[in-house]
Amino acid sequence: MKNLSETFLPALKNELKKQVARLNEAHTAEYHEMISYHMGWVGEGAGAKASGKQIRPFLLLLAVSANGGEWQNALPAAAAIELIHNFSLLHDDIQDNAETRRGRPTVWKKWGVAQAINAGDGIFILANLAMGNLEEKYPAKIVLDAERTLQETCLSLTRGQHLDIAYETRADIEIGDYWQMVAGKTAALLSTATELGALLGGANEKLRFTYREFGHYLGLAFQVQDDLLGIWGNEAETGKSVSSDLLEGKKSLPVLYGLEKGGEFAKRWQEGATAKGTLTEDEIPEMARLLEVEGARLETQRQADQMTELALHALRTANPQGEAGDVLFELTERLLGRAA
Amino acid sequence: MKNLSETFLPALKNELKKQVARLNEAHTAEYHEMISYHMGWVGEGAGAKASGKQIRPFLLLLAVSANGGEWQNALPAAAAIELIHNFSLLHDDIQDNAETRRGRPTVWKKWGVAQAINAGDGIFILANLAMGNLEEKYPAKIVLDAERTLQETCLSLTRGQHLDIAYETRADIEIGDYWQMVAGKTAALLSTATELGALLGGANEKLRFTYREFGHYLGLAFQVQDDLLGIWGNEAETGKSVSSDLLEGKKSLPVLYGLEKGGEFAKRWQEGATAKGTLTEDEIPEMARLLEVEGARLETQRQADQMTELALHALRTANPQGEAGDVLFELTERLLGRAA
Repeated sequence: MKNLSETFLPALKNELKKQVARLNEAHTAEYHEMISYHMGWVGEGAGAKASGKQIRPFLLLLAVSANGGEWQNALPAAAAIELIHNFSLLHDDIQDNAETRRGRPTVWKKWGVAQAINAGDGIFILANLAMGNLEEKYPAKIVLDAERTLQETCLSLTRGQHLDIAYETRADIEIGDYWQMVAGKTAALLSTATELGALLGGANEKLRFTYREFGHYLGLAFQVQDDLLGIWGNEAETGKSVSSDLLEGKKSLPVLYGLEKGGEFAKRWQEGATAKGTLTEDEIPEMARLLEVEGARLETQRQADQMTELALHALRTANPQGEAGDVLFELTERLLGRAA
Repeated sequence: MKNLSETFLPALKNELKKQVARLNEAHTAEYHEMISYHMGWVGEGAGAKASGKQIRPFLLLLAVSANGGEWQNALPAAAAIELIHNFSLLHDDIQDNAETRRGRPTVWKKWGVAQAINAGDGIFILANLAMGNLEEKYPAKIVLDAERTLQETCLSLTRGQHLDIAYETRADIEIGDYWQMVAGKTAALLSTATELGALLGGANEKLRFTYREFGHYLGLAFQVQDDLLGIWGNEAETGKSVSSDLLEGKKSLPVLYGLEKGGEFAKRWQEGATAKGTLTEDEIPEMARLLEVEGARLETQRQADQMTELALHALRTANPQGEAGDVLFELTERLLGRAA
């Protein structure tokens, strides 16, 4: 895995910088700076950690290669996927009122909400322009197909985001609502990363769909795993406070299972929500314990396992080739906490 | 003119509704509603006035027809241009903290900033998906060309928006800065409307560029005209308070001329800006008078005339044909206040 990521990721970074350089003009130097800062390239705390893990473009390039395609040709699409991920994070930070991202002040915190909205819009447009560059290496019809797939994904992302914001103030969220939201917010971009990789690697329609399924279930498994870690995770590993999801009142999957059961957890959650707005920090360990006793942890773990199985099944069906194929299996197992 | 607008605009509305209907699903009904509200189709005050004048898509369809193309084929591009205009207005309203748009509460005012940012993102994505639909009627290479032109325009729009926000707090804005900002904020989308119309109407490279120039100067002339009306306009005609631009401290072209002259206007403006933050309402008539006495009104009018001449010159060079050609001249003269 090390070798391929050491080949792909520096090339991706070059491509990203080339795409963002469209804004590098005298009159808009500060605009270019905001985006370069958000990408983790400049400013205080710049560096690998500030750039994030770049899993989506890495998956895309691996899928190209595992289908026998030239990964270099697909770099503009990999850059576009990463730019779209960053566009959604930038707007998400404003929407969530989040003051830090990857350990650094967010763009809105540094430059204000108005400029941050605009910088997010700009990153999205840069992604669209990057997609157009695929025309240098692929037939126009393939480029249009890839673009349509990506834009439909973006629409799903905003659907998920809409639901996520709406759910914050709605009391009646059910498990079906959860899957709708997560399919948009987390799975859509991952499924498109693997699907576009297959398409640009030369896969046929059926294989392309299998790669899409792989990314979709990988996204769902990853999100459910993240929900478990958000309540019972190890703070040192996740970088989050162990009980932060409960403290924030986040309607994650274990909470929804707990609410569905209508036991002691549900009773106290609703009291907390109605009486004081949220739970207090000293109530959290007991609430986490109740969730576990009432079976919500186990049920969530079962969902995570099932989604992981579905992801691995799709990947086995896709039968990715060569070193990139091996790395796809390794990466999936590492992301889903199954690595040795 | 009446006949063509009565043919084109209802067809445009159908196309817009078809494009926005992608979001019309049970789970995202409210998301669909926000966008339909912003487009002026539903909610309190819905109707023609709430939908705006739709000048950009009308220009696009006229340019298709004036080049001998089938305007119906270009409807997805016309819808995309109008959606992008509306996306930029929606985000602009958040950025400007504007509580009303076309006489109705803005989306952020009704649904909050988080949902409004997301709704704006959604409208932009719907525009991109609309562009992809051009493939039903045009060769893939033409579609990619049109898409690239539009995305570059969107990047210019955000450049202009970036400058506009930055200028609010910068004291050292000069006339060159003004043109940079206006080229992005106002002229970019108009020049792309006319350019795409020529491209999709079958114009050659040179003619396409002439149409682009026409739209560009039309946009600049329109903006300078708007700046004049913002200080010396008739309130009943413009719907704005006559002196609202001065009261808001907007660095419009007459103000920049006044500041450049460094006379009494500049002195009082700077005192107002430093001492109390802004001018008060009773100071406005005297400030407007000073601007006029010091020649800023005349100089701005000269710029408006020059840009109008350049727009009309480009349009004459483009030599648009048929009824659509006549309407292009009429519309230009009406927009620039030259109608009989």
